Amino acid sequence: MSVIKVALLGFGTVGEGVYRTIQSHQKELKAVLGKNVEVVAVLIKNKEKKRDINSGVLITTDFEDIIELPHLDVVIEAITEKEPSFTYLKRALIKGYHIVTANKEMFSSHGRELIELAAKQKVSVGFEATVAGGVPIIQTLQQLLKVNNVYEIQGILNGTSNFILTEMREKKQSFFEALKLAQQNGYAEANPSNDINGFDAYFKLMVLSEIAFGEQPEQKYVKINGITDITSEQIEMAEKLGLHFKHIASIERKEDRLYASVIPTLVSKSHPFYHVEGVENAVHVKTDLVGGITLQGPGAGMFPTASAMIEDLVQVFQRHSTLGNSLKNKSIIKKEAKDQDISYWIVSNLRNHFSLSVITYYDQLSENVFLIKAKKSQLLQLCEQNDALISYPILGNYELKSEHEKEALQLLID
Amino acid sequence: MSVIKVALLGFGTVGEGVYRTIQSHQKELKAVLGKNVEVVAVLIKNKEKKRDINSGVLITTDFEDIIELPHLDVVIEAITEKEPSFTYLKRALIKGYHIVTANKEMFSSHGRELIELAAKQKVSVGFEATVAGGVPIIQTLQQLLKVNNVYEIQGILNGTSNFILTEMREKKQSFFEALKLAQQNGYAEANPSNDINGFDAYFKLMVLSEIAFGEQPEQKYVKINGITDITSEQIEMAEKLGLHFKHIASIERKEDRLYASVIPTLVSKSHPFYHVEGVENAVHVKTDLVGGITLQGPGAGMFPTASAMIEDLVQVFQRHSTLGNSLKNKSIIKKEAKDQDISYWIVSNLRNHFSLSVITYYDQLSENVFLIKAKKSQLLQLCEQNDALISYPILGNYELKSEHEKEALQLLID
Repeated sequence: MSVIKVALLGFGTVGEGVYRTIQSHQKELKAVLGKNVEVVAVLIKNKEKKRDINSGVLITTDFEDIIELPHLDVVIEAITEKEPSFTYLKRALIKGYHIVTANKEMFSSHGRELIELAAKQKVSVGFEATVAGGVPIIQTLQQLLKVNNVYEIQGILNGTSNFILTEMREKKQSFFEALKLAQQNGYAEANPSNDINGFDAYFKLMVLSEIAFGEQPEQKYVKINGITDITSEQIEMAEKLGLHFKHIASIERKEDRLYASVIPTLVSKSHPFYHVEGVENAVHVKTDLVGGITLQGPGAGMFPTASAMIEDLVQVFQRHSTLGNSLKNKSIIKKEAKDQDISYWIVSNLRNHFSLSVITYYDQLSENVFLIKAKKSQLLQLCEQNDALISYPILGNYELKSEHEKEALQLLID
Repeated sequence: MSVIKVALLGFGTVGEGVYRTIQSHQKELKAVLGKNVEVVAVLIKNKEKKRDINSGVLITTDFEDIIELPHLDVVIEAITEKEPSFTYLKRALIKGYHIVTANKEMFSSHGRELIELAAKQKVSVGFEATVAGGVPIIQTLQQLLKVNNVYEIQGILNGTSNFILTEMREKKQSFFEALKLAQQNGYAEANPSNDINGFDAYFKLMVLSEIAFGEQPEQKYVKINGITDITSEQIEMAEKLGLHFKHIASIERKEDRLYASVIPTLVSKSHPFYHVEGVENAVHVKTDLVGGITLQGPGAGMFPTASAMIEDLVQVFQRHSTLGNSLKNKSIIKKEAKDQDISYWIVSNLRNHFSLSVITYYDQLSENVFLIKAKKSQLLQLCEQNDALISYPILGNYELKSEHEKEALQLLID
């Protein structure tokens, strides 16, 4: 079998992302798996909608058309709600197909059952995309759990609510203004209830709970409060005190019980979540051996989530074949270089002033000190032409604001 | 074979951490691997030193005693310098033993050769502990690489230099005062050269380069500058501009070439590294699909590093056996509950003032608003006795400083 046959359930943002990524990363996947990966069927809801899918692919609104195909290798599911997803995935497992899902609500209720059924069928379940989108938290947690005992997991698990809280604070907006902006930017659904009331984060937390603790907490030890009651005034007050409001999901084992919450929380500078802004997600895991690990990254979005699902796809087939090589072979895949980031640098000891001609923007701060804005390759050229050049790059967003700051920068390097 | 036999090379901080963790986590390892894990031999340098090792274990200064044992399963190496480590590990592989290493300098030079030899011998190499201690960056990178193309990796990969820069900034110390403090706290060796000149971070960066790009950069595209020339004045100036000095290791593919550097860099608030302080390490990976992922955690230390090595040990044996279960079974291992963190909360709508008796410390901010300092279980009791209680926890370090702040906090919740 030289082709891995994929059935895709759902062609929304995530489903489309999976399809497009498989198309655009054929070479990468072949290099890793030794086989081509082909989407052979797609389950959709609305026949009228135009979709950019190859003509050879079976497109259908009827799951029976898909499950009755002569052969599949893996079913990738990217629809919402528990049913009919759970039933579809059970039937895929019974047929001996691997499954990969992004469906947190379904998986928080039925994940354990699917995994047990998969084990009986000697196939695998991938569910990395159910929590924190592109951030590989599931498999980091599984890695740590090989020897660590987990005490607590905290997370910013919903990008919509985090975006709203960031906007309210940075732009001094009201909750409703920020929500509207989120919807306009595609960061919130038309019905954003589960995002702002905490339930979306709660389903994800329950998936993490099953992995870390083997169970979920009893209802009476669960507290879920949304962010709708937080006012701009409260946020402003908090900021004056050096605190940021975040919607934190948290699960903790204490003396044989599990306690879980998804509640507005005030975070101080010393906590890694203080600077997690916009639609970013973050997870902080506390264990007995490593202490604390934090992961941060995109919690949703077409390609981050597709990435998680396809990583699962690869893992499922690698697990079922011989040892994969640990190191990449010298890359034969030449990708179009992404545009170089333009950055700021402070440089001094620039002897060859003509060399500045390669630099698009520079500001002379003193006889010997320049602030330059350039691509890294341009800085390299500058270094090659100026042996004694000292330079400090500036990482992150930076804008030079005033003459006063120019003076300060100059002192930095003298 | 119901026992996994481990030979341990080195009994310094890391070696001792591995030994002690295997002893203390016997149940956890048995639950995951289905077998006991036993350290049967330890290679040491100094016979005179007292060590707390079980009497049945072979303790020797001669590697021949170890490699000539009738049977081993895995050799775990925690010594420094390229030789004799490389030779020991090659010989272990030739005997058909798995190997696990923390030796970044050796692995950055010889890692590829060891992995190729291991593949021939059908055994595995674990090297998670070579980079960023307890932070599982290697395997997160390998996960992302299943489908992503990596453009760039940035890291704070040396805790010693990061600790020094933090101390210089927060405590306004000179470089040498901060270095001395680092040595006193055990965060720097007697000879800290490789930490402060950037070479330790560079070896780690080269390991990441092999994984992400399949090769290392040419010497002429490598720039390594230490932190010894950074002055307190420069750090203070930078802070006034909202910038923090960090010692950043960076590797990037640009138009078919690799560029690497380990240099002092100015980091702004928008970059995830801005708040990575003290001995913490962090890695930021930029890829085509997920965009950017950041991992943060302890870069060194007895138990974080031991954790990484034992996770490798488990992975090596799981890889060579049947499918592991993805979910933890309801935990039968009862661990002594870690002391509850005491936290601050702002609460209001407290009707039952007697319920405050469970709280160790509280400050009444107004008729209806209290700042309380309590364990989570105490807050829960408060909630149980006050139906309408509103509370916001405060995450991270927080100290109430003044009357003025009390007023602000009160406004937060009204």
